[in-house]
Amino acid sequence: MGRPRKALLDRGRIGRTALELVDETGDFTVPEIARRLGVQTASVYHHVEGRAGVIELLRERVVDDLDPAALGVRPWDAALEAWAHSYRSAFAAHPRAVSMLMTSPVRAPRVIEQYERVAGLLLEAGFAPETVMPVITGLDNIVLGSALDMSAPEVMWVVGEESQAPRLALAQAATGPARADRAFELTLAGFLAHCRGLLGA
Amino acid sequence: MGRPRKALLDRGRIGRTALELVDETGDFTVPEIARRLGVQTASVYHHVEGRAGVIELLRERVVDDLDPAALGVRPWDAALEAWAHSYRSAFAAHPRAVSMLMTSPVRAPRVIEQYERVAGLLLEAGFAPETVMPVITGLDNIVLGSALDMSAPEVMWVVGEESQAPRLALAQAATGPARADRAFELTLAGFLAHCRGLLGA
Repeated sequence: MGRPRKALLDRGRIGRTALELVDETGDFTVPEIARRLGVQTASVYHHVEGRAGVIELLRERVVDDLDPAALGVRPWDAALEAWAHSYRSAFAAHPRAVSMLMTSPVRAPRVIEQYERVAGLLLEAGFAPETVMPVITGLDNIVLGSALDMSAPEVMWVVGEESQAPRLALAQAATGPARADRAFELTLAGFLAHCRGLLGA
Repeated sequence: MGRPRKALLDRGRIGRTALELVDETGDFTVPEIARRLGVQTASVYHHVEGRAGVIELLRERVVDDLDPAALGVRPWDAALEAWAHSYRSAFAAHPRAVSMLMTSPVRAPRVIEQYERVAGLLLEAGFAPETVMPVITGLDNIVLGSALDMSAPEVMWVVGEESQAPRLALAQAATGPARADRAFELTLAGFLAHCRGLLGA
């Protein structure tokens, strides 16, 4: 609606349209992207390598919202902390894309470049090579689990009658809407402290 | 295929069928469930309150695979550790359900009962009421983030040429297929240590 039917097609527009569809419906198909852009399905395939290629364009759109300064912070743990916050905000805007992006291999050069910087940061800090991927993956899981949780309802556990789950009701009332943010801060703090301990050991 | 067209309808079968559809396609609709069970859509609605009700039946099916003994372990941190492992295994079998279940309020009585036990365990251990939900939510995010990661490809970052991301390539080669499990163990260990520290403070 309101889009020119013969708009110039480029990879940026394909990625943005795929992301819009995922935000709205939880998924995309290449014919749906073509329809929304007013072009033939074959034209989309001319610009991108299949469905997996579209997922990478979509991934680049989300990752473009990360703060590029975060990974320049020092020391390494402050960089990871800043990156985790920025990364969580970027993905919280697109919770329906999280699952798709977590289960498809990362090929997008701009995203590979971010992880290369994180791997370099950890190696320079003194982490053993075999510990670098577990640290990166652990941080990814915390961030993306929390990004999904940010789109959860404010009251996540609906206790029908308080007598049925009195301690859960008490705990929910005590935290209120701060639940998601406090969970993230607590988990990230524990994670970074543990990583500092791994370096010291 | 092969199912009797007039099978007896019950909530267990509706939940199982919804879970099958989510495992296969990433989503379900009530008419699809009805078709697969060989009944009218209205008959399904007779047994369950709308789409949200079906999500709760599906949630019960997944949570039924948790080890009921885990939360009986003592002390509290050993119980959380056993529960987290069991919970991760149960959800790793259904990665496409994770996002749906994390973003819908929990109403299923058998699931509320599990969280009531966890809340009780933490309160008894001495956690302040306002810290209980952040701890539960943090553990949920770690477990569900990791369950999604378990269905990720073994090589998650596809480095086209090693020279393009040499440190990422080195780190991936050093960890290999142990990446997902080591990330979970590292994150869970850090989380539990941090929680023990909160109690001591």
